[in-house]
Amino acid sequence: MLVTLDHDRIRELRLDRPPVNALNPALLLRLRVALEEARRDGCRGVVLSGSPGCFSGGLDIPELLRLGRAEMTATWGSLFALLRALATSEIPVAAALTGHSPAGGTVLAIHADYRIMAEGPFRLGLNEVQVGLPLPEVIFRTLQHVVGERQAERLAVGGLLVEPAEALRVGLVDEVVGVADVIPRALAWMTELLSRPAAAMAGTRAMARRSLRQGFDALDPALIEDVVDQWFSAETQAVMHALAERLGKRRPAG
Amino acid sequence: MLVTLDHDRIRELRLDRPPVNALNPALLLRLRVALEEARRDGCRGVVLSGSPGCFSGGLDIPELLRLGRAEMTATWGSLFALLRALATSEIPVAAALTGHSPAGGTVLAIHADYRIMAEGPFRLGLNEVQVGLPLPEVIFRTLQHVVGERQAERLAVGGLLVEPAEALRVGLVDEVVGVADVIPRALAWMTELLSRPAAAMAGTRAMARRSLRQGFDALDPALIEDVVDQWFSAETQAVMHALAERLGKRRPAG
Amino acid sequence: MLVTLDHDRIRELRLDRPPVNALNPALLLRLRVALEEARRDGCRGVVLSGSPGCFSGGLDIPELLRLGRAEMTATWGSLFALLRALATSEIPVAAALTGHSPAGGTVLAIHADYRIMAEGPFRLGLNEVQVGLPLPEVIFRTLQHVVGERQAERLAVGGLLVEPAEALRVGLVDEVVGVADVIPRALAWMTELLSRPAAAMAGTRAMARRSLRQGFDALDPALIEDVVDQWFSAETQAVMHALAERLGKRRPAG
Repeated sequence: MLVTLDHDRIRELRLDRPPVNALNPALLLRLRVALEEARRDGCRGVVLSGSPGCFSGGLDIPELLRLGRAEMTATWGSLFALLRALATSEIPVAAALTGHSPAGGTVLAIHADYRIMAEGPFRLGLNEVQVGLPLPEVIFRTLQHVVGERQAERLAVGGLLVEPAEALRVGLVDEVVGVADVIPRALAWMTELLSRPAAAMAGTRAMARRSLRQGFDALDPALIEDVVDQWFSAETQAVMHALAERLGKRRPAG
Repeated sequence: MLVTLDHDRIRELRLDRPPVNALNPALLLRLRVALEEARRDGCRGVVLSGSPGCFSGGLDIPELLRLGRAEMTATWGSLFALLRALATSEIPVAAALTGHSPAGGTVLAIHADYRIMAEGPFRLGLNEVQVGLPLPEVIFRTLQHVVGERQAERLAVGGLLVEPAEALRVGLVDEVVGVADVIPRALAWMTELLSRPAAAMAGTRAMARRSLRQGFDALDPALIEDVVDQWFSAETQAVMHALAERLGKRRPAG
Repeated sequence: MLVTLDHDRIRELRLDRPPVNALNPALLLRLRVALEEARRDGCRGVVLSGSPGCFSGGLDIPELLRLGRAEMTATWGSLFALLRALATSEIPVAAALTGHSPAGGTVLAIHADYRIMAEGPFRLGLNEVQVGLPLPEVIFRTLQHVVGERQAERLAVGGLLVEPAEALRVGLVDEVVGVADVIPRALAWMTELLSRPAAAMAGTRAMARRSLRQGFDALDPALIEDVVDQWFSAETQAVMHALAERLGKRRPAG
């Protein structure tokens, strides 16, 4: 479900869980372990990529709907741990958004250092509200860091999915390039960043991303309980089951 | 002075106080009561609109200049209470800026959830400094929320009035459309927002707008006294009286 | 090394230290004294300008590399005192960026009220990381004020030098005009700002720039020691000496 490719000392972690690289508990854990391994193996940077046309469809709703409360609590805990690992990674991470990246796909991306989006009929955004889930606050804080207070409000409250050009305009991504160029550009960007004097770059990076770290340090376990409460609320379950049913008709269950 | 129009469960509050929908004490109070009524009547959203070519010319300076200190203290208190009601409204509010919106017109708009501006020879902005009044801090905080720290500094310190295209560029408004389309677009935007799962949208909205609420919660009555002191300062009175005289020559007193 | 030109009550301070207006301890002190003199002489605004094609090449690395620890501590203290004087100046300051403005050139500019950049093959940006120096936090906070959290992260961590158009896009400068127009435009902008009612403008300006003042008020002398430690680190010294050697081959030592 995750392919590892080393380009000199930059490690590419390529999501590979057909059909849409949906994030289930196993993949969330695998990603977190892979980030830890990259650091331990002496890699100097990570590129998180996906399949041509699809970075990630987000959380695997059909699979998650089968989980009970304890399992969902563990799953949200695992997602937040992964986001924390991305946001506070000692080595920089570039998101190579090779295609569709709704919800969880965009959530992963905003916790990286840099985002390159594929040009084309692809959408990205934090559409959690559209699927009945309030955006968890720690994720919203990262979104504010990336796009500022006003665009964070507009994008999150409406649960908007936007096209690449609009994502670029509001700063949700840093570059838009052709699908085939997304991974090469991410590698080139990382290579240039790693050409900087190492201590100066690392020190400045830690300072610039400190507010993200503080957001995760302040994450109260009670907030995870709130998110799980919301997940099991009547509204959210109704919207999610309707969504899962539509997905089930279009493609094999994730 | 305020026309109420219901579009299904979206209530339009249309400023209707010729010639320029200037905000006097009676209209400030009427607007606040109308917002409260909309919520109580079970409306799900509010569109605040104006006349074709003029949303609002801002505070009714000629009328306000006739007020004594106690009345001005009450008037500023009433304005802040109205802004607080907009900023913390339980139901979303869209500003349909149908034309000119200087000073108080823009002040109302930035406290709403969304702003649609009329294309054409119309100006908007927080030109308080140009009329001799420092921008009150709680309003400045909302401006920072909407356009960020730097543009808030640039717009407020210079007291700039800008054209619709510039307002769009810096994020002071979200859309610019033809005058005749401003209200329909505001209704369409609100309709789409209200199509979201209600609890998820409301929860995310409350989180995204919490800093506005905190700004008003922290509003010290002493700050209103400061604003009133400034209002009665020699500089402000001189500029305002000169302005009122110019207005008096152009149109019947507001 | 600094030419003083009075345009009515606006004082232009023109950097004049060939070949690249590099900032050495003497010029840092001279600039700070000149800002104080402008205020004392009753000037109402300051325009900080440079030579056609070069605003400032930044700190005078070759000269600074000859300084011992005590002298470097004093030099950083002097730079921070100058930046504080710019950020908290009682009278507004416009930066007329007449050409190249890397590193220290941009650092001066972001602490001013307004930035006008020369069109052409000129670069600006906070490339401290490229020369082996982490960006000091108090400067980074000003950068966040000017361009927001995300662009501050991108520009500072990569130590990016950008072209005028890109600087305008991300808000690092406010205007881009032809080289010959930079100083006249800065004077015109200042003249317009000074046409505002004085107390209203000054009060709003103090509020809008308060966070900059607080950043400098919170500046711990221990932080200057950290910056000096970094200056004398092996990585920084190696990069700086290599840089000084390249500069030495191209032009007479600064």
